Amino acid sequence: MIKLHGFAVSNYFNMVKLALLEKGVDFEINTVHGSQDEAFLAISPRGKVPVLETDKGFLNETNVILEYIEETQSGKALLPSDPYERGYVRALTKEIELYIELPARSCYMEVFFGGKVDDAVKEKAKADLLAGVATLKRHAKFAPYVAGSEMTIADLMFLFSIDLASAVAGKLFGIDLLADLPEAKALLAELAKNPNVQQVEADKNAEMAAFIAAAKARK
Amino acid sequence: MIKLHGFAVSNYFNMVKLALLEKGVDFEINTVHGSQDEAFLAISPRGKVPVLETDKGFLNETNVILEYIEETQSGKALLPSDPYERGYVRALTKEIELYIELPARSCYMEVFFGGKVDDAVKEKAKADLLAGVATLKRHAKFAPYVAGSEMTIADLMFLFSIDLASAVAGKLFGIDLLADLPEAKALLAELAKNPNVQQVEADKNAEMAAFIAAAKARK
Repeated sequence: MIKLHGFAVSNYFNMVKLALLEKGVDFEINTVHGSQDEAFLAISPRGKVPVLETDKGFLNETNVILEYIEETQSGKALLPSDPYERGYVRALTKEIELYIELPARSCYMEVFFGGKVDDAVKEKAKADLLAGVATLKRHAKFAPYVAGSEMTIADLMFLFSIDLASAVAGKLFGIDLLADLPEAKALLAELAKNPNVQQVEADKNAEMAAFIAAAKARK
Repeated sequence: MIKLHGFAVSNYFNMVKLALLEKGVDFEINTVHGSQDEAFLAISPRGKVPVLETDKGFLNETNVILEYIEETQSGKALLPSDPYERGYVRALTKEIELYIELPARSCYMEVFFGGKVDDAVKEKAKADLLAGVATLKRHAKFAPYVAGSEMTIADLMFLFSIDLASAVAGKLFGIDLLADLPEAKALLAELAKNPNVQQVEADKNAEMAAFIAAAKARK
């Protein structure tokens, strides 16, 4: 059986977990945090979660894991079958990761863990985030899902990136990141009704207090 | 016919160009630089190159374009057919992009274009680059190619990222980035003998002086 390594507060872990739940794949979870310990680096070469354990070995990087699941597991398709349409979904997914999640991530230490982020880093994050949301507005369909009428991996990346990015934009820059994107807010409201999304959120909330305390202690 | 939009100094453009040359795909080039002009944003929503023009429309993001070419064009395979092995190649490709190319990119303005990068950004880039190369050493095979005995998209990402990252590490930090990775240097020497790599390099060198001058004028 497939085993997913990671923890319920990790947004990338939750993208894969939701994919498995939506597809109805049987899987186990091994709760583990990212680290630079040699034992963990042996299964995740950059020390990050999630990691997928398969019959053949371990796979890391969320979008790589999502593609693998799509190629090997049955259940609801999260990528279109047409190569061009699949490319469109992949491009949206990558744009959300590179231009929204990663700039927001550069500020997580200050926004969520009581640390301090350099002003130059924050200034760059702000410009990048605004450009990232403009990219999404330009390219996504929100009809109602990010790439059209069906849920895809782009929705997984969106759902578990935009909340954190919105918190960064609100707390650090006083900006409503989705002010100009009401269709994105509507999608979030729709996704919040999904039972699998609710389960992932509940699992996350159950772990959150302990995670924040540990992260602040480490910083 | 497939049309590749971009310019010969862009390392991401060159990844796709080399893929097309290695596969023997007929293609045209439209020389264009990334920009935030509305006309260009209509074909590339973040304003970046490369962009692939297909019968069905435009595709952006290099790894997305490489997957599309692999799925729709004949010629030499640059991804394995087994899903797990394909995941391994994709993971290596992503690791080189996220943990080597992108940290190096945060310093290009200072290293190549005569600008100045904030010290906090440089400090983070240095730590990230060292961790990125350690990731590659841990995960790659270099036998002789990054993922094993065959050239894959991981080699394209490696070839056109590691030279720039090495320049950043050398010029800003006085580090030989591949000092501990002689097998990577051996692969670069091997790839330098490839006629298609030589063509891409020659085209790049022909455009370089004008590109540097224009970039410095804009900064």
